[in-house]
Amino acid sequence: MPSTMILTIDLGGTKVAFGAIDEHGAMHFNERVLINNLHGDAVGTLITHKISQIIKQFDKGRLQINAIGVSVPGIVRHQTGRVWVPNIKGWEDYPLKENIQRASSGIPIILESDRTCYVLGEKWMGCAKGCDNVIFLAIGTGIGAGIIANGSLVKGANDIGGAVGWMVHSAPQRGKADSSGCAFESCASGNGMVKLAQGMMNGTPGNNSTLISDSLKAQHIFTAYDTDEIAREVVQHCIKQWGMAVANLVSIFNPEKLVLGGGVFGPAVRFIPEIRQEAKKWAQPVSEKLYALEASQLGKDAGLYGAAYAALQFLNARINEERVS
Amino acid sequence: MPSTMILTIDLGGTKVAFGAIDEHGAMHFNERVLINNLHGDAVGTLITHKISQIIKQFDKGRLQINAIGVSVPGIVRHQTGRVWVPNIKGWEDYPLKENIQRASSGIPIILESDRTCYVLGEKWMGCAKGCDNVIFLAIGTGIGAGIIANGSLVKGANDIGGAVGWMVHSAPQRGKADSSGCAFESCASGNGMVKLAQGMMNGTPGNNSTLISDSLKAQHIFTAYDTDEIAREVVQHCIKQWGMAVANLVSIFNPEKLVLGGGVFGPAVRFIPEIRQEAKKWAQPVSEKLYALEASQLGKDAGLYGAAYAALQFLNARINEERVS
Repeated sequence: MPSTMILTIDLGGTKVAFGAIDEHGAMHFNERVLINNLHGDAVGTLITHKISQIIKQFDKGRLQINAIGVSVPGIVRHQTGRVWVPNIKGWEDYPLKENIQRASSGIPIILESDRTCYVLGEKWMGCAKGCDNVIFLAIGTGIGAGIIANGSLVKGANDIGGAVGWMVHSAPQRGKADSSGCAFESCASGNGMVKLAQGMMNGTPGNNSTLISDSLKAQHIFTAYDTDEIAREVVQHCIKQWGMAVANLVSIFNPEKLVLGGGVFGPAVRFIPEIRQEAKKWAQPVSEKLYALEASQLGKDAGLYGAAYAALQFLNARINEERVS
Repeated sequence: MPSTMILTIDLGGTKVAFGAIDEHGAMHFNERVLINNLHGDAVGTLITHKISQIIKQFDKGRLQINAIGVSVPGIVRHQTGRVWVPNIKGWEDYPLKENIQRASSGIPIILESDRTCYVLGEKWMGCAKGCDNVIFLAIGTGIGAGIIANGSLVKGANDIGGAVGWMVHSAPQRGKADSSGCAFESCASGNGMVKLAQGMMNGTPGNNSTLISDSLKAQHIFTAYDTDEIAREVVQHCIKQWGMAVANLVSIFNPEKLVLGGGVFGPAVRFIPEIRQEAKKWAQPVSEKLYALEASQLGKDAGLYGAAYAALQFLNARINEERVS
């Protein structure tokens, strides 16, 4: 019988996942709601309504929600509880914590960035159990990393660390060399893949690509990999970029494990051996031999587990504080 | 009156610095000894003789050495006390701790990598006091970084983290674009600067450079900056590389401070505003506004202070353990 229940929320740009996870990591509830074209307060209202609903539902079953953990795809301003979420219009400085508070009457609320949640989730219930030096490289619409070094989260002085999408490593460029360099994210995120493919299609009149430029998504590119030359070129370009990023992180952090995941990465699991091969060219050679490169084990639930774990850690810290005082 | 005295040693490829620092950070002794052409055991003997001498000297003054801290320019294998120091011939797997033990009869010995010592030194007695998120980018013969994130040292699973010299970011290349990329260290370390200048001199017949190719050192290049075109080009190339490395570290760690130092960097202090300007082009734009970029305050003594601090922390941890048990 669980003694603690966390309502856990994974915010995305197109959908919100809700879950209830107990202190043993058992998932008691898991539902995804599309946000579609909603923006601003409408997204907030969708979330708070759903929270009220879930709390009532648990109340009926005489189960209490002890805390709410939220995975935020952007920047969390912990002092104010406001968030910046680039993928939701009108959420440049949105009072998320305050709004959830109104719907949840006194239940503690913990907000964490999605990348932090991903690595926490894998450490708690996924492929990084027991790892004190581990990185989750999240490849989605954008690119970020959740980092645990020496057992401690690397979030930076203002909670915006792990912005590895901004890393510069321009080496393998397609076509003419670009002396201005290339930020990792713009080359190798979901958006980057789409833009690169579109550029190649427009720049190659008479190409016989089966990709459809207008509604193109990263998953279409992966699907067409075996049959479409442009798709293959884009993915190969990304493998080089991902490999260099992995190499840089391995040289800097000397981790025991590096986990690849995120909304776009799923179909790229088959390329992990190639990514490792590419990383081998660049990484510090001793560290290069000493880490495991693996796909996320929790997949689309990594954020839910991680936000739940962050909330559990908050509750435990509070209990310890009370014991001491 | 100090209650604790640390014998602190900063090993370099060409000289060894010895110091005695008390728990308040006061330096009671500071001497540099050239190693010149010594290698293998001869370097070990030089060190252990000097240690015996210093211990005797303090004995006479009725002062006890409580611990020995050593800054090692390479990899420390903590389990065995053996070290890999690429700049000392024959020190691929040298039993440094064991040898010092013989000369110091039971005094605790703490070995740390030089980059870790640098950042610890600046945090304890230099420009990074009170910083919980700070990076020391050490530019010497090679390039490495000492990193403190969330108050905790980032040393990696095998103590070889911070190998930022292996970062790949090839963008501003001189001459023809090199599609194979460029590891940071080979472009922008002391060795890299010398090789680049030599290549430019040999590749430009009739150049009127005042640099002398055969005995060239990084400091000659800095000295010639205002009057020599090749020197200026090399330094400008390094400013771009250092700027990109700073940008990557700022994006990844969101530090409050990044300290530039190391054996080669000294004369480059005047270029810090240009390095910052270059970093601004690449770094995560919020983090970019929130960090200080400064020169090492402790300069050539950073390693001595840091090794002393590591030893003090070891002694404090031991006292706390004894209290608990």
